[in-house]
Amino acid sequence: MSEQYQPGLENVIATETNLSYLDVENEEIVLRGYDLIELAKHATYLDIVGLMLDGSLPAADQRAALEEKLKSEYDFPENVLSMMKLLPEQANLMDVLRTGISAIASYDDELEDRSHDANYRKAIRLLAKVPQIVANGYYAILKRPFIEPRKDLSYTANFLYMITGKVPTKLEESIFDQSLIVYSEHEMPNSTFAARVIASTQSDLYGALTGAVASLKGTLHGGANEAVMKMLLEAETADNIEPLMLQKLANKERIMGFGHRVYMKKADPRALLMKEALVELAKEKNQEELYRMCDIGEQLMKREKNLYPNLDYYAAPVYYLLGIPIDLFTPVFLAARTVGISAHVMEQHENNRLFRPRVLYKGPRNLHP
Amino acid sequence: MSEQYQPGLENVIATETNLSYLDVENEEIVLRGYDLIELAKHATYLDIVGLMLDGSLPAADQRAALEEKLKSEYDFPENVLSMMKLLPEQANLMDVLRTGISAIASYDDELEDRSHDANYRKAIRLLAKVPQIVANGYYAILKRPFIEPRKDLSYTANFLYMITGKVPTKLEESIFDQSLIVYSEHEMPNSTFAARVIASTQSDLYGALTGAVASLKGTLHGGANEAVMKMLLEAETADNIEPLMLQKLANKERIMGFGHRVYMKKADPRALLMKEALVELAKEKNQEELYRMCDIGEQLMKREKNLYPNLDYYAAPVYYLLGIPIDLFTPVFLAARTVGISAHVMEQHENNRLFRPRVLYKGPRNLHP
Repeated sequence: MSEQYQPGLENVIATETNLSYLDVENEEIVLRGYDLIELAKHATYLDIVGLMLDGSLPAADQRAALEEKLKSEYDFPENVLSMMKLLPEQANLMDVLRTGISAIASYDDELEDRSHDANYRKAIRLLAKVPQIVANGYYAILKRPFIEPRKDLSYTANFLYMITGKVPTKLEESIFDQSLIVYSEHEMPNSTFAARVIASTQSDLYGALTGAVASLKGTLHGGANEAVMKMLLEAETADNIEPLMLQKLANKERIMGFGHRVYMKKADPRALLMKEALVELAKEKNQEELYRMCDIGEQLMKREKNLYPNLDYYAAPVYYLLGIPIDLFTPVFLAARTVGISAHVMEQHENNRLFRPRVLYKGPRNLHP
Repeated sequence: MSEQYQPGLENVIATETNLSYLDVENEEIVLRGYDLIELAKHATYLDIVGLMLDGSLPAADQRAALEEKLKSEYDFPENVLSMMKLLPEQANLMDVLRTGISAIASYDDELEDRSHDANYRKAIRLLAKVPQIVANGYYAILKRPFIEPRKDLSYTANFLYMITGKVPTKLEESIFDQSLIVYSEHEMPNSTFAARVIASTQSDLYGALTGAVASLKGTLHGGANEAVMKMLLEAETADNIEPLMLQKLANKERIMGFGHRVYMKKADPRALLMKEALVELAKEKNQEELYRMCDIGEQLMKREKNLYPNLDYYAAPVYYLLGIPIDLFTPVFLAARTVGISAHVMEQHENNRLFRPRVLYKGPRNLHP
């Protein structure tokens, strides 16, 4: 047994993968050989779905076929809508999502088939249905009427439409699509790791994704984007953000949306992309003060803590201006990450080794009842 | 970054713990200093609950107080029963359990409190409610009437009563209790690891346990006890078991219930205990042929493969003779393991480091969209 113990498995290689890689030296996020930022600028979320699940970027006709395939899986089990309606109003939306994903598993006839093709079809079904669980899960606990997906809208426009109830503008759709891309995959974060650990028992894709939702809920992971927005709203104005953040730092409160375990000796390139999107969106919506607040906060953290903003810091105000309720920020993150997690589960099933580590036992020995 | 890559994190230390340890050299399972087999012979499942959650074996009055505490948490949210009834009849019982545990989270007022005391109370609530999800989840999908827990029975007798609908005999209760003990905790199996990974984002106990259910469902983990029983039933008679198993070996089919990743150069001591229980139970129920089948299978695997039976191999026929439906074998395993997983989540929250490993990237580089 290896005597070196790395808490949190920091820098420990957990698996081989063909899917993605954080190139720490160059601070580049690599997806199947492509730079994520280039993809976000020149491709669409559906291209990423094709890239991650099929292995290569789709041509235009393949992309159209993929979108049709997704729309053909929009059918949603009525009973799962009814189940979500039974959850109490105080339910955390990530818990609603977790319960919804866990429940729809029982409606998939291919649930127990772990072949590549069956896993691929299940991933498509999940990509078609998770946005509906996000939106209708929200309406369910608020006892509002459910909303039906619209096949005349693009996959991305429909997702945002289901959340806000309004058909998005071209700019809104394009920025939301870009946000889905930058959230789609990120090597081996806790949620992806949890999914691969679970899948390695030969458990199914739905179960692995359910575990990933549970992971992403945590404030040290997906919950960060919601925490950022709450801080911005607490500050209210650009004048207040600096005193508020300084006070939090003085109180040793953790300020979310900055830094990353693995990298970020410079700014997160995904954050810079979302910052550009925020500028555009704030202009269209006359909300430039929100942008100014974020910029002041960014400069303050650089000055005081030498920390750079991560994706969550700029995705939060973007989602806010897109009309997404704060409680749905992390669920939307999970919906976008569904493609990455599905690809990892497929890879795990196709070249499996059960995860079963050991421990360093620090307790007593030789006691007798 | 460590260049040594161990697939499945084999022999990699994932965490420190005071809870349990597989002493591979002596093939001893240590729980907070005690030998698990000694505990199974001289203590009760409630003692294990006290030991794992409070840190020491309870005295008689403490054990009685603990049992009262558990019974005071028998109240079960009606809506979650209704939700389980909405699941389709073909649902896997582990998926029903996963959905049920995920759903009851939203009814716990202390859900987001990760302090030791709140986690302790949540663990007690889960121990009170998980057996009900197991039994009533089964009735729910079969559209049978639900069954109420009976406070006049012991915790263990009530669990078995809810599953079978019959108050167990003293022998049945005592053997079921012993089975719960041997399933209660086992160092760092995949499900416990999944739960700690999830909890390390500061996600809650219910979510961590939901992930553990997803893991335990896999055929390389908890699903093994069900596979064992199906093989025994397929053989039907003691005369048939040897030809059937030889045929499976010739077909390169994996025979479940034998061997273990970490240890077992000799027989699993938990399996030996369940084997003794099987002898007693088979005698009381005039089912000695089932015992003979198991014994023949054990000898065959030793001779042909040099493999020893693990716990699942003998727990399966014991559960069968206790009247537990095969589909509930793995759910019962999870119910018993709830105490171990809860203790691990508490330990993780109290001394946390986010799990975030790295990967060995094998894909292409420098592609452009």
